[in-house]
Amino acid sequence: MSFSITRAGHLEFRVTDLEQARQFYVEVLGLVLVGSDDQRLYLGGLEEREHHSLSLRLSDSPGVSHLAFRVSDPQDLKRLAELYRGTGRPTRWVPEGEEVGQGEALRVQDPSGLPLEFYHQMASRPWMLQQFDRYRGAQIMRLDHFNCQVPQVQQGYDWFTQQLGFFCSETTLTDDQPPALWAAWLHRKQNVHDIALMNGVGPRVHHAGFWVSDQLAVLRACDVLAAAGYADSIERGPGRHGLSNAFFVYLRDPDGNRIELYTGDYLIPDPDWEPRHWSINDPRRATFWGHKPPPSWFDEASRVEDILSGDLLPTSEPPLRDRPEFVT
Amino acid sequence: MSFSITRAGHLEFRVTDLEQARQFYVEVLGLVLVGSDDQRLYLGGLEEREHHSLSLRLSDSPGVSHLAFRVSDPQDLKRLAELYRGTGRPTRWVPEGEEVGQGEALRVQDPSGLPLEFYHQMASRPWMLQQFDRYRGAQIMRLDHFNCQVPQVQQGYDWFTQQLGFFCSETTLTDDQPPALWAAWLHRKQNVHDIALMNGVGPRVHHAGFWVSDQLAVLRACDVLAAAGYADSIERGPGRHGLSNAFFVYLRDPDGNRIELYTGDYLIPDPDWEPRHWSINDPRRATFWGHKPPPSWFDEASRVEDILSGDLLPTSEPPLRDRPEFVT
Amino acid sequence: MSFSITRAGHLEFRVTDLEQARQFYVEVLGLVLVGSDDQRLYLGGLEEREHHSLSLRLSDSPGVSHLAFRVSDPQDLKRLAELYRGTGRPTRWVPEGEEVGQGEALRVQDPSGLPLEFYHQMASRPWMLQQFDRYRGAQIMRLDHFNCQVPQVQQGYDWFTQQLGFFCSETTLTDDQPPALWAAWLHRKQNVHDIALMNGVGPRVHHAGFWVSDQLAVLRACDVLAAAGYADSIERGPGRHGLSNAFFVYLRDPDGNRIELYTGDYLIPDPDWEPRHWSINDPRRATFWGHKPPPSWFDEASRVEDILSGDLLPTSEPPLRDRPEFVT
Amino acid sequence: MSFSITRAGHLEFRVTDLEQARQFYVEVLGLVLVGSDDQRLYLGGLEEREHHSLSLRLSDSPGVSHLAFRVSDPQDLKRLAELYRGTGRPTRWVPEGEEVGQGEALRVQDPSGLPLEFYHQMASRPWMLQQFDRYRGAQIMRLDHFNCQVPQVQQGYDWFTQQLGFFCSETTLTDDQPPALWAAWLHRKQNVHDIALMNGVGPRVHHAGFWVSDQLAVLRACDVLAAAGYADSIERGPGRHGLSNAFFVYLRDPDGNRIELYTGDYLIPDPDWEPRHWSINDPRRATFWGHKPPPSWFDEASRVEDILSGDLLPTSEPPLRDRPEFVT
Repeated sequence: MSFSITRAGHLEFRVTDLEQARQFYVEVLGLVLVGSDDQRLYLGGLEEREHHSLSLRLSDSPGVSHLAFRVSDPQDLKRLAELYRGTGRPTRWVPEGEEVGQGEALRVQDPSGLPLEFYHQMASRPWMLQQFDRYRGAQIMRLDHFNCQVPQVQQGYDWFTQQLGFFCSETTLTDDQPPALWAAWLHRKQNVHDIALMNGVGPRVHHAGFWVSDQLAVLRACDVLAAAGYADSIERGPGRHGLSNAFFVYLRDPDGNRIELYTGDYLIPDPDWEPRHWSINDPRRATFWGHKPPPSWFDEASRVEDILSGDLLPTSEPPLRDRPEFVT
Repeated sequence: MSFSITRAGHLEFRVTDLEQARQFYVEVLGLVLVGSDDQRLYLGGLEEREHHSLSLRLSDSPGVSHLAFRVSDPQDLKRLAELYRGTGRPTRWVPEGEEVGQGEALRVQDPSGLPLEFYHQMASRPWMLQQFDRYRGAQIMRLDHFNCQVPQVQQGYDWFTQQLGFFCSETTLTDDQPPALWAAWLHRKQNVHDIALMNGVGPRVHHAGFWVSDQLAVLRACDVLAAAGYADSIERGPGRHGLSNAFFVYLRDPDGNRIELYTGDYLIPDPDWEPRHWSINDPRRATFWGHKPPPSWFDEASRVEDILSGDLLPTSEPPLRDRPEFVT
Repeated sequence: MSFSITRAGHLEFRVTDLEQARQFYVEVLGLVLVGSDDQRLYLGGLEEREHHSLSLRLSDSPGVSHLAFRVSDPQDLKRLAELYRGTGRPTRWVPEGEEVGQGEALRVQDPSGLPLEFYHQMASRPWMLQQFDRYRGAQIMRLDHFNCQVPQVQQGYDWFTQQLGFFCSETTLTDDQPPALWAAWLHRKQNVHDIALMNGVGPRVHHAGFWVSDQLAVLRACDVLAAAGYADSIERGPGRHGLSNAFFVYLRDPDGNRIELYTGDYLIPDPDWEPRHWSINDPRRATFWGHKPPPSWFDEASRVEDILSGDLLPTSEPPLRDRPEFVT
Repeated sequence: MSFSITRAGHLEFRVTDLEQARQFYVEVLGLVLVGSDDQRLYLGGLEEREHHSLSLRLSDSPGVSHLAFRVSDPQDLKRLAELYRGTGRPTRWVPEGEEVGQGEALRVQDPSGLPLEFYHQMASRPWMLQQFDRYRGAQIMRLDHFNCQVPQVQQGYDWFTQQLGFFCSETTLTDDQPPALWAAWLHRKQNVHDIALMNGVGPRVHHAGFWVSDQLAVLRACDVLAAAGYADSIERGPGRHGLSNAFFVYLRDPDGNRIELYTGDYLIPDPDWEPRHWSINDPRRATFWGHKPPPSWFDEASRVEDILSGDLLPTSEPPLRDRPEFVT
């Protein structure tokens, strides 16, 4: 069985103050405000043609409502519903328009507990790619990927690769004999990942990665954040990842949800790409230049919603240690 | 019928002096010299894992021997052979090792007269992506695309999209009513193109496009070229394309074969991407900033080999005018 | 005799439509609008602390009112007045506040006919250097230099170096034997120039050079200009100068006054710097990469005001040819 | 009394292994090897015309032999000798050629204990500024400044500003009432500093700052260092300083001597520049983005030589705390 999943399409963060969130995402980071109502802001990037890639929903606590993947074949929504129902996992149909611009969509609680959405139809908007005079702040181009913490990476890896047809670009392994799978970078579109699964307390969404045009855009984002009073939002980096080779910075929004500004990984046009494997304890894996992530980067992440009740799901501890030996 | 073509994989330029060509491509532009013999140099980019993406073959005149596309399913080579034989076009099997590192491959003279190669197996080499201390010159990352001049773009477009399964990202149309297809950008990998077909005297290869990491790499290439005495090799740019949005510069190698250094187009993960259409006479199409290409950019291109005899094919004139009205 | 001239401080362009000029300089190029009245806009750069470095005055034709140099010793204004009066050249005192923020200043018609101003006192404004969230468009940092066309470069060079104490960084010489001085780059602050004198129809101001932070700021300026409908404003470049080593682009404002965005020349802290000499016919002198300037770049420039009447001064032809042999 | 000091000119580091030092400074960082003998390597930057700006001398321990300033008036060497002798501080004449390329020079132990050298004559070498094809690694352009730890900053400040004529660009003050001077950035050339004095155990040289062309050169330096096995050499950054606004990274050479790669501060052409004052406890002062320096950055620095014996001088503790409250 194979599905026409094309890419990470959009996600929804829970935020406790829409105006505070707008300041951060629109005024400072430069995402485009596409629409809004009392409950939500809809935001998009400069390279995207779809209505939105990030929605912010007013809630009483931070967290993630859902992570959405696009399918190019509309028939796949039903086939995916059957797949998930066959496992006994919760599923529900999200009616057209519940999320502005989106056709009927499928929401599921996947085997790792992650709240996934699959959609086909999404309204388009005028392309801003070459409206350079309207670029602002960090000049975010597009959503690139989701990164999730789960207690059972191997189980999640098996599901995404064997059932959903994701490809693996790189992994992180423990130093055990035989090594255990500590993290995996999985993709449908042709770069390093649409979703990464990392060993940790979960199910939680560690971050959403947004693509920026080049390394200087990452540096400029830090300058703009600090000038606008958001220096404390910069959690880790800027730096270069060993794994993925991307240049990055990690930010925390005013509610603590984490995003990554990300650029410069590599293209993987061949489905028979041989994955690259790293040791969890290789200091160049996380930051090629040797910088250690701060403890908060391992400890903190966004809890996710039960797709039926909307409550935040409980989390559980992983059997494997959740960080390298050199991070205490 | 569909084929597992993944990308533009490599090409072979004819050059009249291997040492002169090595100076240009290796010492100045920073391509990696992977291997060589009396007849050929094999070169690759820093992001590539395959043995080579450019071979330079000693010949008595410049030109292009073949443009090669990779297929991920080895069975597709036979199916492609049948497709081309069905049209009565010349085909031949290139034995394993005729091109160093490559398994048995199919070479065809396509309906536009272009000498195409399809291959599956290619030896790999150690990945240099993060060997930053070995980066040199223009720091070319990988082959990105081929651009060809043909007298009948519509015919070529039909073949590539309907028979080979290429997708179209952008086109250029004449101002006629109805408009005629003047040029098309076609892709299998998920960016703007693997091959572009432009209206002009053909069959000829206009240029091979190589990906560099960012805009500054393009500027640095110009600095290095000029410092090393190759200022005359800079034919057009640097600048930003309207079509594709890429930042570019066009160079002529010592034999006159043309390459483009290219970066910063956009990702197309969805097969139902709606192509963007430009008028041939829109001055921002070629260079978004309004600069006009020089006449040589329209007049000159590399002739291509007859895949059976190795002779250069004759060319014919296009029925449509080969340049915008504002270029005289 | 020596004077405490520190740098090119500000200039005044004549423009025929203040709102049209504001759109170009503030909205598109990102200069800061510091103040305005019915007759003038006052603009400044992000690195500058003085009130303004560019004023735009409503007039019936384009042109330049004056080019102003700062002196750090206020007594030098009187000493400069004596120097110029001794030559019989016109001088006048500009009262405090005639130009907003400026103390009493000296205006002179210098021996080349250029309308120069010398000032000491200028109001300051809050420093925007690290208000990165307010950076816009081309992100102009500061005024860098003036470039003037005069028919007698040697005479102007002698005046600026012998009477005013300017230092010479680089020159352009004719290929005559002995060579004649075709152009000179002269400085008081420690980079390549505060004023350049080029052989040509004059007295005219060829351009005012504004410093931007890096090469990408020059490229971004072109993108923003083209996106905002000002592609025709891009006259020459982007490119790298051989002379000065700076990365540049030349723009024409809506009235045809010319500015240069300029970055990356070098520091000259030593007064005994040995000037570098170029041949007028060296193609790498103007653009290191070999690009030829367009004829308009030689033909067109801003006429200057008579400091007493405010009328535009007549111009005269130079005895030397005004462009390289390779520009026809 | 005033002196014609123009800039920080060169320095000498003690290193314990010349070949190991050459690998680091030449192969990885891209400084130009100008000359060498059994005892010393002479290195220079791409923008410099003088023979060398860094010498590395074989010694049994790391440290700094001397920090040299250029004077443009050769008579000033004698006048400076008189000034220092008047204070009873040690002085000695360094004969022409003791340091290759240098004329007779004055060496002194200044009131803070720093081993300073003043020189006028230095041999020149061919300018590499536009030999872009020879640029390597971090592409260091020129020496920019010295940074020293001394126990009595106010005393050092008074000497440099009142006796030697240095100007002050920025300072750091304690939060005491009245505030005490914790650090001062002092310049003769027209950017933020030629020498900074910071409160700390001293006399010690904290680092030598080298100018690189732009922010990407700093990032590329980190990539090259990590790829070549020198990730541990990256001590702090990359980041943007609040104070000076420069983009920076701090590196430790194989002996532990510290250098800074530095770019993008601002120009100070006016001698009446009003210094900017920062609180020691403002987290944006050190890194505008809020990153804390590691303890080693405060604890470790290079001891300096007694100019007469060549032995390393003892150090003493400062009366003021040597780091911000937020660094423990």
